[in-house]
Amino acid sequence: MNHFGRLFQISIFGESHGASVGILIDGVPAGIELDAKDFIQDLNRRKPGGIGTTTRIETDEVQIDSGVFQGHTTGGAILLRFLNQNVNSKDYSNLVSHPRPSHADFVANIKYKGYQDYRGGGSFSGRLTLGIVAAGVIAKKIIKDISFETNIINLAGCKNKEEYSTILKKTVEEKDSVGGIVELRAKNVKIGLGEPYFDSLESTISHLLFSIGGVKGVSFGIGFDGVDLKGSSFNDVILNEKGITKTNHNGGINGGISNGNDIVVKVMVKPTPSIFLEQETYSFKTKSLEPLLIEGRHDAAIIFRAQVVLEACLAIALADAYLIDKAYQ
Amino acid sequence: MNHFGRLFQISIFGESHGASVGILIDGVPAGIELDAKDFIQDLNRRKPGGIGTTTRIETDEVQIDSGVFQGHTTGGAILLRFLNQNVNSKDYSNLVSHPRPSHADFVANIKYKGYQDYRGGGSFSGRLTLGIVAAGVIAKKIIKDISFETNIINLAGCKNKEEYSTILKKTVEEKDSVGGIVELRAKNVKIGLGEPYFDSLESTISHLLFSIGGVKGVSFGIGFDGVDLKGSSFNDVILNEKGITKTNHNGGINGGISNGNDIVVKVMVKPTPSIFLEQETYSFKTKSLEPLLIEGRHDAAIIFRAQVVLEACLAIALADAYLIDKAYQ
Amino acid sequence: MNHFGRLFQISIFGESHGASVGILIDGVPAGIELDAKDFIQDLNRRKPGGIGTTTRIETDEVQIDSGVFQGHTTGGAILLRFLNQNVNSKDYSNLVSHPRPSHADFVANIKYKGYQDYRGGGSFSGRLTLGIVAAGVIAKKIIKDISFETNIINLAGCKNKEEYSTILKKTVEEKDSVGGIVELRAKNVKIGLGEPYFDSLESTISHLLFSIGGVKGVSFGIGFDGVDLKGSSFNDVILNEKGITKTNHNGGINGGISNGNDIVVKVMVKPTPSIFLEQETYSFKTKSLEPLLIEGRHDAAIIFRAQVVLEACLAIALADAYLIDKAYQ
Amino acid sequence: MNHFGRLFQISIFGESHGASVGILIDGVPAGIELDAKDFIQDLNRRKPGGIGTTTRIETDEVQIDSGVFQGHTTGGAILLRFLNQNVNSKDYSNLVSHPRPSHADFVANIKYKGYQDYRGGGSFSGRLTLGIVAAGVIAKKIIKDISFETNIINLAGCKNKEEYSTILKKTVEEKDSVGGIVELRAKNVKIGLGEPYFDSLESTISHLLFSIGGVKGVSFGIGFDGVDLKGSSFNDVILNEKGITKTNHNGGINGGISNGNDIVVKVMVKPTPSIFLEQETYSFKTKSLEPLLIEGRHDAAIIFRAQVVLEACLAIALADAYLIDKAYQ
Repeated sequence: MNHFGRLFQISIFGESHGASVGILIDGVPAGIELDAKDFIQDLNRRKPGGIGTTTRIETDEVQIDSGVFQGHTTGGAILLRFLNQNVNSKDYSNLVSHPRPSHADFVANIKYKGYQDYRGGGSFSGRLTLGIVAAGVIAKKIIKDISFETNIINLAGCKNKEEYSTILKKTVEEKDSVGGIVELRAKNVKIGLGEPYFDSLESTISHLLFSIGGVKGVSFGIGFDGVDLKGSSFNDVILNEKGITKTNHNGGINGGISNGNDIVVKVMVKPTPSIFLEQETYSFKTKSLEPLLIEGRHDAAIIFRAQVVLEACLAIALADAYLIDKAYQ
Repeated sequence: MNHFGRLFQISIFGESHGASVGILIDGVPAGIELDAKDFIQDLNRRKPGGIGTTTRIETDEVQIDSGVFQGHTTGGAILLRFLNQNVNSKDYSNLVSHPRPSHADFVANIKYKGYQDYRGGGSFSGRLTLGIVAAGVIAKKIIKDISFETNIINLAGCKNKEEYSTILKKTVEEKDSVGGIVELRAKNVKIGLGEPYFDSLESTISHLLFSIGGVKGVSFGIGFDGVDLKGSSFNDVILNEKGITKTNHNGGINGGISNGNDIVVKVMVKPTPSIFLEQETYSFKTKSLEPLLIEGRHDAAIIFRAQVVLEACLAIALADAYLIDKAYQ
Repeated sequence: MNHFGRLFQISIFGESHGASVGILIDGVPAGIELDAKDFIQDLNRRKPGGIGTTTRIETDEVQIDSGVFQGHTTGGAILLRFLNQNVNSKDYSNLVSHPRPSHADFVANIKYKGYQDYRGGGSFSGRLTLGIVAAGVIAKKIIKDISFETNIINLAGCKNKEEYSTILKKTVEEKDSVGGIVELRAKNVKIGLGEPYFDSLESTISHLLFSIGGVKGVSFGIGFDGVDLKGSSFNDVILNEKGITKTNHNGGINGGISNGNDIVVKVMVKPTPSIFLEQETYSFKTKSLEPLLIEGRHDAAIIFRAQVVLEACLAIALADAYLIDKAYQ
Repeated sequence: MNHFGRLFQISIFGESHGASVGILIDGVPAGIELDAKDFIQDLNRRKPGGIGTTTRIETDEVQIDSGVFQGHTTGGAILLRFLNQNVNSKDYSNLVSHPRPSHADFVANIKYKGYQDYRGGGSFSGRLTLGIVAAGVIAKKIIKDISFETNIINLAGCKNKEEYSTILKKTVEEKDSVGGIVELRAKNVKIGLGEPYFDSLESTISHLLFSIGGVKGVSFGIGFDGVDLKGSSFNDVILNEKGITKTNHNGGINGGISNGNDIVVKVMVKPTPSIFLEQETYSFKTKSLEPLLIEGRHDAAIIFRAQVVLEACLAIALADAYLIDKAYQ
């Protein structure tokens, strides 16, 4: 169930405190130049380091275990792994009996009948997004004409980028966390990617985005903000034979298919559930509500590090659509 | 590419002005009572009739062509078809050279190299959602403990249901259209449906919802409205061993898995692109912007008829997750 | 579970005595000329008529219900149906309590808990192969450079074609049935179709062939007959840069991938299980062995009509591999 | 394209002389006891050591990298890896310009445009079957009521087991290789596994078996040997309510579905293509036929070590069918 894609296929694995996390990528064309250093830029965008980020520092060096030979992809499956080194497992033992609010602790315990690896969030850990970022790097090489722009357009209700660091500082002081909205933009997407109905670009993009923990909303173009527009204002007037439109309320997609304009996606990322304030939760031990103080190492605003992960999801969906499109040219 | 689902699988087909539209449903357990009349209630919710709905009236009687014997499902694939009868194809001939804004006309023409059935929107027509509604009826029989509640919580920016008919009347007079937000709610969902990552409930539900024309946003729980909440307010405190939470900002899903609370989904439906006001569009004939007057028969607010379609998407995703879950008990 | 293919996808449906049988085909490129008359030649090869064939005569006219417009494929899903007209359901009522040997009666009754459509073999009927033949016709149009040659190389142990009609006449007189071996040959297949491991050409071809009732063996090249060859004799010496080999013991496939030589497949088709001789079977009524006399209309050597069905399976697998290959050029 | 399975899913990766080979297994129920030592018995059956086996000796210790916690499966994806240690890459450099007969060298070079890892067969190496054996071990734990019996019933045309070692010794002396037929038998399989048409047990089992290099034929029950039987002799008379039949010519499967008798599969394994006798092949350098002397380390009869691999394929197909079946109980 950790598998996605029709031609460009990814399978994710690993747990936060196990040996490693990573991704298996299949359907990559042979002959693409690929080296461990190609991953550094995007992986660095996911790294902690700024205000309010976790103190768990990992080198996050990618191990390319298969599918690459003499600096090029071979056409075979590419296994990428990231070793877990800075692991501190004693922090989490309390969470089995005291499931963290808004976290997967409770559902994992029931679904997996107590056999889940509960250390550090186990397979639900944000650490698994390392593989997604890495797959995104390869996806971007397949769709090399497309460029990406990713921004936080809303942090805790604030749309002014210059205030973000102040908000963040205050949040850390309050031992709380904040969420926000990321805007993804893919430029220079050829017309015709995607399908009507179940392989619509919106379907596959949202499928991948909602697989990322903390994502609670996805919209295209103007999205929910366009709810009060009438058809006469919402409609994007086509201006030329390349399909460029006067406005882009549809976010570059009509009928599930790319229309030649920028693909614009907005993604709502909820505030990190792991906060350092005291909370309440149900205790399986005492069978009553009890105070909960979360230890461990967590981000106050995971949205900053999430940006490149969400961008990778968009790139993966587009790479798959691009390869499918090629089959029909 | 018109196929979805792992165990409960659907494949959609048809064009607005072809012989028929319909759906092929596979993976349905044997022995479920099923009769053509079981579809009537949900199909009627999709029928036009109210203010501002299309004047194309079809009987929408379902033809059960396979997979049902002596009033019960056989365990084989179920073919459901709806004949196209009230077809009026001359209305659409102009749209090949003058693609309608915010519609699939333009992308279809390029993707399918001019071979698409352009009559009445062809395979992009909302008429194909008949099959989705019908599949939803069967899905609901599989997950019979789950009940659904579906409402328009926002019409053209207005959240007061009592004003909807006034808004609608005015929109029709103005020859314009409106969109809005549908809230879907699934009650009594067992804990543990869905998977982390690529088969997360949010992924499969959004995948299906975004396959519906006009859907431009999907969120779970409080969604985008929760952007200004801090973690301490957003987090849903778990109250008891059944996983019931004090609030439901997460919309009944954590880590991609149902948590025992109502699943709550908000779906943004854009205003119907086909309006009777004069618009502009690029003409492939004259190679310049030209006025466009859309004829044919269209809804001023497709969101009313879309409700049951979106509800069906939710039911289909849950039925698939339910069957998968059974395999692991 | 009635779905197959990665890009060229087929979904089969119907029962022998239901309204219709047919197939839904997705992933067909737009712009292929397609007309009902294109199916006649292959459908006729499947029709009864010769010695020892069933007396159930159907017109087997294909209904193209979607995906074709103005004589060309649209790029959308193609629904093909065949109406069941010459249905004679009273023949089969006895078979629920007295399952026919070597038939699906017994397993269907248990798997589907008695809800299966038992008339005329229901969804297990050879009549469903109509859809496969029809899908084969479309597949062949996609891979139009490839030609097919199909022959019965063994009938009831006899390899001399000139004796086939004598064997058949005698079999009918004896109220018995015979099986045999079909050799399929695809010529002019480009090098590189298929994948190592799970999408090997041998895997996908055999997957489709074994989905046909009565197929009990599939081999490539010399197959089982090569069991006594040593490596030095078995190995096919490569003669030129086109990959042409001196012998073709490997049947045109190495490492799961087409190698430029003819693809050669041998398919063992068992004798039709429905014979007119008295047999024994377990009776669920009396809970003991009882004599069974099968009524209805059956072929004495289904292998003759099966030829075009098996050829279609090969064409379908190659069409899918061909489209996937295009994505990587 | 290295992915297979609907619920029990496997994805294979690696190259013979890369860092490691292995498999990613998804859809495994939580709570199954699993330890590295559970793999030893089956992995040992695949190990070289006897007469005529390769001198490449690897420890073949499995690394369980994810999906197992405190000695039990977690329900998450299980990554199993085998390090490549005894690698001797200089043996193979000649094979790019001189493709080995009956090997994947030639097709790989064209398909992957020269980018394939050609060392030791790369991703086409039999070494990748380590992962299949390992996945088979887990599959067997899921279907623990089923037992397996695997035998070579024919070696180089000889059916007498006692002569096998003599044949083998002679083959090594002659620097040649031999093939044969493996019979797989699964006992105590419940009635009802598999589906009609594209998920027939015969389809999924053969799909997996034909993914193994060297397999050139697959049959069920009496298979090709039954070609001269008439229906009256071929048909398996059902004896009791458990479906047990007097004979088992159908190999335990009717209509694609297990019928309660032993599942019996015969698999033709061709003679190892890599022999130490001088052969001829086309040289891309001189553009003419040239003598070829294969170096490296190879088995004279890979069929011995293949037995457990083929058995694993059968177990994997049955485990997937078993989980699907559970969803419908």
